[in-house]
Amino acid sequence: MSGRPGPEPLRDPATLRRLLSPRSIAVVGVSAEPTRFGGRTVTNLVDFAGPVWGVNPKYAGQDLHGRPCLASLDELPDSPDCVLVALPREQLMPAIEACIRKGAGGVIAYASGYGETGLPERVAEEAALRDRCRAAGLPLVGVNCLGIVDHVLKAGVTFMPEYPRLVAPAGGVAITSQSGALGYALMQAAERGFSVCHMTTAGNATDLDVCDLAAYQLSMPECRAVALAVEGLRDGRRLMLLGEAARRAGKPIVALKLGRGEAGAAAAVSHTGSLAGSAAAWSAAFRRAGMVEVEDFDALLETAGLFAKAPPPRAPGVAIITPSGGAGIMAADQAEALGLSMPQPLPETERVLRAAIPDFGAPRNPCDLTAQVAGNPASYDACMEAMLSDPQYGCAVIPVVYSHHATTQVRMESLRPYAARFGKPLLIAWIPEQLEAPGAFAADSVPELILFRSMRRLMNAVRLWQQYHAEREQDAPPPPAGVEDALAMLPAGPAVLTEAEAKALFARVGVPVVEERRAATAEAAVAAAAALGFPVVLKLDSPDIAHKTEVGGVRLNLADAEAVRAAFAAITASARRHAPGARIDGVLVQRMSRGGVELILGGRRDGQFGPMVLVGTGGVQAELWKDVALDIAPVSPARAEAMLRSLRGFPLLDGFRGSARADLAAVARTVSAFSVLLAAGGDRIEEAEVNPLIAGDWGCLAVDGLVRCSA
Amino acid sequence: MSGRPGPEPLRDPATLRRLLSPRSIAVVGVSAEPTRFGGRTVTNLVDFAGPVWGVNPKYAGQDLHGRPCLASLDELPDSPDCVLVALPREQLMPAIEACIRKGAGGVIAYASGYGETGLPERVAEEAALRDRCRAAGLPLVGVNCLGIVDHVLKAGVTFMPEYPRLVAPAGGVAITSQSGALGYALMQAAERGFSVCHMTTAGNATDLDVCDLAAYQLSMPECRAVALAVEGLRDGRRLMLLGEAARRAGKPIVALKLGRGEAGAAAAVSHTGSLAGSAAAWSAAFRRAGMVEVEDFDALLETAGLFAKAPPPRAPGVAIITPSGGAGIMAADQAEALGLSMPQPLPETERVLRAAIPDFGAPRNPCDLTAQVAGNPASYDACMEAMLSDPQYGCAVIPVVYSHHATTQVRMESLRPYAARFGKPLLIAWIPEQLEAPGAFAADSVPELILFRSMRRLMNAVRLWQQYHAEREQDAPPPPAGVEDALAMLPAGPAVLTEAEAKALFARVGVPVVEERRAATAEAAVAAAAALGFPVVLKLDSPDIAHKTEVGGVRLNLADAEAVRAAFAAITASARRHAPGARIDGVLVQRMSRGGVELILGGRRDGQFGPMVLVGTGGVQAELWKDVALDIAPVSPARAEAMLRSLRGFPLLDGFRGSARADLAAVARTVSAFSVLLAAGGDRIEEAEVNPLIAGDWGCLAVDGLVRCSA
Repeated sequence: MSGRPGPEPLRDPATLRRLLSPRSIAVVGVSAEPTRFGGRTVTNLVDFAGPVWGVNPKYAGQDLHGRPCLASLDELPDSPDCVLVALPREQLMPAIEACIRKGAGGVIAYASGYGETGLPERVAEEAALRDRCRAAGLPLVGVNCLGIVDHVLKAGVTFMPEYPRLVAPAGGVAITSQSGALGYALMQAAERGFSVCHMTTAGNATDLDVCDLAAYQLSMPECRAVALAVEGLRDGRRLMLLGEAARRAGKPIVALKLGRGEAGAAAAVSHTGSLAGSAAAWSAAFRRAGMVEVEDFDALLETAGLFAKAPPPRAPGVAIITPSGGAGIMAADQAEALGLSMPQPLPETERVLRAAIPDFGAPRNPCDLTAQVAGNPASYDACMEAMLSDPQYGCAVIPVVYSHHATTQVRMESLRPYAARFGKPLLIAWIPEQLEAPGAFAADSVPELILFRSMRRLMNAVRLWQQYHAEREQDAPPPPAGVEDALAMLPAGPAVLTEAEAKALFARVGVPVVEERRAATAEAAVAAAAALGFPVVLKLDSPDIAHKTEVGGVRLNLADAEAVRAAFAAITASARRHAPGARIDGVLVQRMSRGGVELILGGRRDGQFGPMVLVGTGGVQAELWKDVALDIAPVSPARAEAMLRSLRGFPLLDGFRGSARADLAAVARTVSAFSVLLAAGGDRIEEAEVNPLIAGDWGCLAVDGLVRCSA
Repeated sequence: MSGRPGPEPLRDPATLRRLLSPRSIAVVGVSAEPTRFGGRTVTNLVDFAGPVWGVNPKYAGQDLHGRPCLASLDELPDSPDCVLVALPREQLMPAIEACIRKGAGGVIAYASGYGETGLPERVAEEAALRDRCRAAGLPLVGVNCLGIVDHVLKAGVTFMPEYPRLVAPAGGVAITSQSGALGYALMQAAERGFSVCHMTTAGNATDLDVCDLAAYQLSMPECRAVALAVEGLRDGRRLMLLGEAARRAGKPIVALKLGRGEAGAAAAVSHTGSLAGSAAAWSAAFRRAGMVEVEDFDALLETAGLFAKAPPPRAPGVAIITPSGGAGIMAADQAEALGLSMPQPLPETERVLRAAIPDFGAPRNPCDLTAQVAGNPASYDACMEAMLSDPQYGCAVIPVVYSHHATTQVRMESLRPYAARFGKPLLIAWIPEQLEAPGAFAADSVPELILFRSMRRLMNAVRLWQQYHAEREQDAPPPPAGVEDALAMLPAGPAVLTEAEAKALFARVGVPVVEERRAATAEAAVAAAAALGFPVVLKLDSPDIAHKTEVGGVRLNLADAEAVRAAFAAITASARRHAPGARIDGVLVQRMSRGGVELILGGRRDGQFGPMVLVGTGGVQAELWKDVALDIAPVSPARAEAMLRSLRGFPLLDGFRGSARADLAAVARTVSAFSVLLAAGGDRIEEAEVNPLIAGDWGCLAVDGLVRCSA
């Protein structure tokens, strides 16, 4: 319908296994100097069990960094699973040819200086690499990347120094980052005990992008969750394919969008566009793809850790069990700010707490055990057991308020059995400004405990975890009734539809539009008004004037024939004065709409994700409050209702100050129908808007409309 | 005027010197067991140069933990500066008597179980301690506290384990926390290299509260900034006294309020017995006191580090100098979200960058040097020098994208001279998830570099630093013209003023109020309307009915005598029907206000800070958008204007969509005058409101008013 082909399918993970979880590795361009990229890569493979070959004619026949070095790939005794090319740009293509000859499982290229320079010849050079690799079936990671790590295999195929220092046990989080440096910055969490299983960096994504790489990670049994850092994609719709893969795998993806501001500024052409930036489009896309979006880099890995370790919540309540009152207050502040539920303990729970906790503690939630109970194993066990047995609580937040070298580690170990016994995640809030300590390592590196170094991030992650499991049901897009007819009404080339044309288009897909008649003369307008019933509205009817109000082209609330005649004269005179060359066909006569709440319904095209639909609070102050919800078109009525409910102005539809409740189902159906049109229109609809859409207990009505079509 | 006495003055720092920077220390209640509170305290003093005495009759004459132990305080060879009492509650008062006898410089008490239990007899017991200490001139830290640390003197007078492990050099940040555990959690930053000079914990603040303790820290020459974590105060106005002390000392206070919401506040009552007050009132108080408020615990210490180390900004621009594109994007995202200025380099700066940076880097801001330049000292130096010489930039943000054990520390050392040469702060954004490393220690522990482990927190701190130095001028409250007359109009006891009475009160202090006349009959109303000029408004005049609209008591836009007569009849009939027993005096006749923007002007009493003034966007949707600014009354017209400008709805006053600009100065004068009345009214005015205050280019006008007086 839209003419835009679907996104390129994700690469089959099975075809990437040799490259990303290699059993043998060749490093092309190795040198004797251990700090150069090739040398570093070989030294990083010191704990890798499979064969590693260096390739460099200069050192042929020698051992370099403990591995044999050969003159060329052709001389390798076997076909290598993974070939790392540490050569500069000029020598990359010949190396790729050698990989193809040798039947390698894939290639990783560090070289920079391609498309990221913005130079056309370098863009072409990169495209040639992609074409050659794809033609030969040789998957390529990079260019301009930093390599990959399979931490289970100890395959540190990267030039980052000291990979073998990363001591944490291989665990459930896989990292995929577009930026190489940020990927490795995340990977270094292993130095403080955080369990990661894998890291990939896409760089320029010449062949494989972050979606292909993350989909591979989802296929690995040891991966429990993916932490994804993305800057941009050639085709944003691949995110939906990745989301689908994650759903099938039953594994969450925690995602961060970098580069939020710049593109947002470019978008704002029309009123609608200015309300919705491109970061908002990415947020809508992550949500649609079923991914968990985090607000910043700080939150990415910790949140992924929660998703990797925690079972689904068994109850919404958050229990806070603290040895310090101050930490309990901090926890309550953050939980309350996010609207998390912190129920008070049941009477039988409270009875146990009251018996164990001294009078300067608090047998409540937050439960302040005091340092006294924390130091008494029997009391401590009674309180923990009581709180974790209380069916209101789905997880427990346990602050560590100071780090003690001798005892904190022991305490972390002693907590582990509780997680297993009660099937409820134990979230450790590490408060001390000493950030790395044996106790923190002990919590980060085990599957039973989930460590956060920020109460804010912890509570935010709990919220995301609860939301993720609440929103598992998938949103089915509605059937495209009447859409083919509507599309047939679109002009072939770029054009702005008149208000009447736009509304006719909207009506065809099921948007209720105000009843109106065209009138070329004042008397025709009076007759139309009489037929429709007074009071009426007169609006200029001209294909050349898009913004009628600004040329005095709208008159409201005309009560009788005389008023209609006067308005006709005034509108046409004013339009001729303001736009002397414009064609003026007369006026539209509309019945005044019934009372209701003004909404804005809009559509625009996002460069990454295609047609987007937005709905927001309307009225004269709309641009002040910027109260809009955005999603990828089409949306189902259920999703449209969720968009409406997410507005700050939602109470206006819901009986605000005693007013009648709007027919929410009718509004949601209308938003959905409008979004179906946008989706079907694809690239042909540049911008569409209903402003206002009036909503009341009687339904809703599109009173004005605009459609801008592109070539 | 208000009858409320002023806040208790802050304790003179000179009287706290012996206690908080002691030259000799006695630990009462020491035991041989090194893990008990007394034993821990003595072992924490291992590096303290002055005499330390243990006191416990059980060990009299022995050495405990390397220090002599005596039977009682009376036997000490000298009067101790600081006496730490590690005894339980029951034994505290006798120990205090011994301190008084011995002429000690002050006492610190760990004991819990006082006012925080909520038990009346314990509250009284705590009050008796305070009274005794104050009568004897013996300052007391605690009860229910965790001690103090003077890190310069290595006086770790605390039971927290392993104080001597804290290895960072004593530096410029002093910590004062109400919660003992959180104070020590902050202090543990020294383990990772962060330089702190002092820590105090107030606990129940029986005698000294966080304001007294922080004021002492401001008086110490080594203190450059104070990090303050407060839950509540007996009298919030002491915050202003502390702010005044900070202004005089020229040292910033970075503050965090704990116990912000209902749940947190409830927890705070049982923790240290504090009354929390509203979070918005606290924010206003911090601002009024000239303090820098941070949003959460995570930000407290890092932000204080910036304030301790950075000179005032010399230019608003933020330079971002990065070896990685990903980190540059992250920096730009966070800076842009906060509205920080990131100007592009001047042409001469760009010329230098262009010559040094390869084509896959970026000679812009963010300046992506690439790893290639970062590894080449001559190119690196040229770029750093060019960016730091550019007069547009007032600070430089330098991400460390990965931590290298061998080289990152060296790089941090090499950056230090730039800070000194250019007088611009160098902010290190530590990106790696390896959180503690020699390189991080090297940056945290020196005065020239300012380390953040979060780009978000870094940029937020830059914003606070710029704001702090922009807002140094103090806000002088306006003179209370007409206030005495106005106060004389207030009733003696609890009462709700009629609309007419409320407006007369407001008018007396200079609030412009709508012209109106009282009319007991329909014909009197017609006469009044004729005198005022049509169209008019009629409002019910009854001392017994506060909410006129709800009983049909308001009719707008009455154009002639007939309409006035009909409205009079309707209003009085409706009121009699809705409120049969109410006294009905007739109606108020007002001229319809000229067109304008509706604002709300209100006043209420905060438990901690007394009278507060608020101004917000009005209209029927006011409660939906909750767009209000709050401050402590009184405010000057300049501050009132700043409040108006902070509203999201401010554009409505500023020519929104082509409307006329309101007379902002007139509105600001009115807000200020109203706030003067609130401040003077003190406890007598429970609540006051002007709703709406109509503002236009012709000035502003109070159209309706309400005052509720208390006993």
